[in-house]
Amino acid sequence: MYPKNDTYVPLILKNMSSARILSVAQKEGGTQLKLVIEYSNGDKALMKPMRFTREQQTLPNHFYFTDYERHNAEIAAFHLDRILGFRRAMPVSGRLVNITSELMAQVTASDLLKTFFVSPDKNVCFHGQCSYYCDTSHAICGNPDMLEGSFAAYLPSQDVLERKTWRHPWRRSYHKRRKAKWETDPNYCELIRNLPPYNSGRRMLDIMDLSVFDFLMGNMDRHHYETFTLFGNDSFPIHLDHGRAFGKAFHDEMSILAPIIQCCHIRKSTLETLLRFHNVKKLSEHMRESMNDDQLSPVLWEPHLTAIDRRVGLVLQKVRECLSVSTMSGEDAADESHARPSTNATFDIDMGDLGKEPKYTARSREQT
Amino acid sequence: MYPKNDTYVPLILKNMSSARILSVAQKEGGTQLKLVIEYSNGDKALMKPMRFTREQQTLPNHFYFTDYERHNAEIAAFHLDRILGFRRAMPVSGRLVNITSELMAQVTASDLLKTFFVSPDKNVCFHGQCSYYCDTSHAICGNPDMLEGSFAAYLPSQDVLERKTWRHPWRRSYHKRRKAKWETDPNYCELIRNLPPYNSGRRMLDIMDLSVFDFLMGNMDRHHYETFTLFGNDSFPIHLDHGRAFGKAFHDEMSILAPIIQCCHIRKSTLETLLRFHNVKKLSEHMRESMNDDQLSPVLWEPHLTAIDRRVGLVLQKVRECLSVSTMSGEDAADESHARPSTNATFDIDMGDLGKEPKYTARSREQT
Repeated sequence: MYPKNDTYVPLILKNMSSARILSVAQKEGGTQLKLVIEYSNGDKALMKPMRFTREQQTLPNHFYFTDYERHNAEIAAFHLDRILGFRRAMPVSGRLVNITSELMAQVTASDLLKTFFVSPDKNVCFHGQCSYYCDTSHAICGNPDMLEGSFAAYLPSQDVLERKTWRHPWRRSYHKRRKAKWETDPNYCELIRNLPPYNSGRRMLDIMDLSVFDFLMGNMDRHHYETFTLFGNDSFPIHLDHGRAFGKAFHDEMSILAPIIQCCHIRKSTLETLLRFHNVKKLSEHMRESMNDDQLSPVLWEPHLTAIDRRVGLVLQKVRECLSVSTMSGEDAADESHARPSTNATFDIDMGDLGKEPKYTARSREQT
Repeated sequence: MYPKNDTYVPLILKNMSSARILSVAQKEGGTQLKLVIEYSNGDKALMKPMRFTREQQTLPNHFYFTDYERHNAEIAAFHLDRILGFRRAMPVSGRLVNITSELMAQVTASDLLKTFFVSPDKNVCFHGQCSYYCDTSHAICGNPDMLEGSFAAYLPSQDVLERKTWRHPWRRSYHKRRKAKWETDPNYCELIRNLPPYNSGRRMLDIMDLSVFDFLMGNMDRHHYETFTLFGNDSFPIHLDHGRAFGKAFHDEMSILAPIIQCCHIRKSTLETLLRFHNVKKLSEHMRESMNDDQLSPVLWEPHLTAIDRRVGLVLQKVRECLSVSTMSGEDAADESHARPSTNATFDIDMGDLGKEPKYTARSREQT
């Protein structure tokens, strides 16, 4: 999305978090409330407002598809994507806005305007209109009128740069009683890796990257992804919509790693990156430093940063399990077909100086 | 509703909390989920399921009309009504039920049955169908399938004993921006006390009782009340539907006392009862003892019991303020018309042995 040491990204972040807001409208579509923000310089951002404090976890009886969106997850996801070296997410900045003067005063549409009110606790609130959580009992409220939000830079218009939407092959069922095919079919990966666009080019490894990225932040809500049409199948999946990440700091949702586990496949550079976080400087430290510049710092509740480091170890452990199966003889591994290593990837293990924790390097024949 | 030392009430309470459940259906109408329970002996109860723990307060930005219902508020309200000597509420018992075997297994209607599911945390949940909070994201969940509920005895069928529904004169607006007439009109009480059924008989004092009762438990949701038609205007308002009481333990909502404050009117026996709780044995102690027999004891979070005692003092203070205005000369009190004592009631003050806290007795010409 942008080069490694891009100087434009910090400028975009700064502008989104400080430029004067010229107009505020509700984003059409989607289930939860989002606002389209236009700045005085013509830039646009997608704002997700804060609903709960940083400590609020996903409710234990809530599904991934009923979970509330978290503005700070959007911010943290941008930083994580950048630190992992993917750079496939648009810049997201935090900002504290005044609901009355910066939002309400810039709203022109009456259907949004009429949803603003003052709550019993004298806070300024609004709820907008959407299919989920857009009513008086689920209002967005300031304190008393200051509100945190995430501001994500807009992608170029589809008129200028067309995008294609793809169904994620490891998409969940989005149903409280049904399972997706990949949850029950041990040979699901074989199916996918033989289908275009996953049977050639970079796409399959991009899906593995997405799996690592989502696992690290506990995001179960990756139902679709988009690519830029211009580059055909050589383009990367855009990392978009992370409002439901960082919901459970004390639970590691292993099923998010299903693509990695079922395909035993991972991009060499990604594995190297993870190894570096494991062996050299922790991912949480990079995150803390990177997010320190955000206006809403600290962006993440500390247990989520602990979780990220723990999950780096878990990804590496899953890769190790793939390796140990791959080093078994064919007859021993006969009933382990679902964990069979990818024929496209091999791993070299190097116990090195890690003590109990093995250290990995990967050599892959796929393009990275 | 029942005599003072009725022996049948404890039996009803016991039956509702232990008898075998024969059928479970959803209660039609109303905004939040309620179940109609039929027992093996033919009795019926209205069940309100637990949503949150005892410590959960009304959300600061929630209005009285968006607040969740609390099963324990229903139980506590029955005990409070009985202890205050009103006995105008139907018996309500707590009960711990097994969602799977005692509820789901007794459901026959498919529209309710199909809302049962197992949550991500492996708890058994259901949400029913209603206008508020009846969806997957607001499900009622067990732990893992044990669920607390309030079970309120059913009133006799309207075929047998007809009831009339009245709009409460101090009803709130049920709108987040509108105020009710009584909130802005300083002479509102004059208007009401000259209208039937409030201009004669017991009804006006019953409304004052209701105000005390609701204030003690912080219930702002008294929009209507019902009476038994059989007794005409000599009948009492039935104390029904207290699911939104006991929501804020650290806030005393003085506006619930508006009828008392605006009319300077209170039933003598009620004032005597409050004085007894203030001077002799605290209301909270009576409540603790009475609720101790309930299966779900402790029914209330301790701060709510502290609040009840504090609010007894506040009611007495408001009566004292009425008195001090009434002892002013007519010209001094000219612009205090909204706090003018009722022409139907006089209060005798007796400083007694209370020290700083004056002790009251009331003498009223109204029937009690």
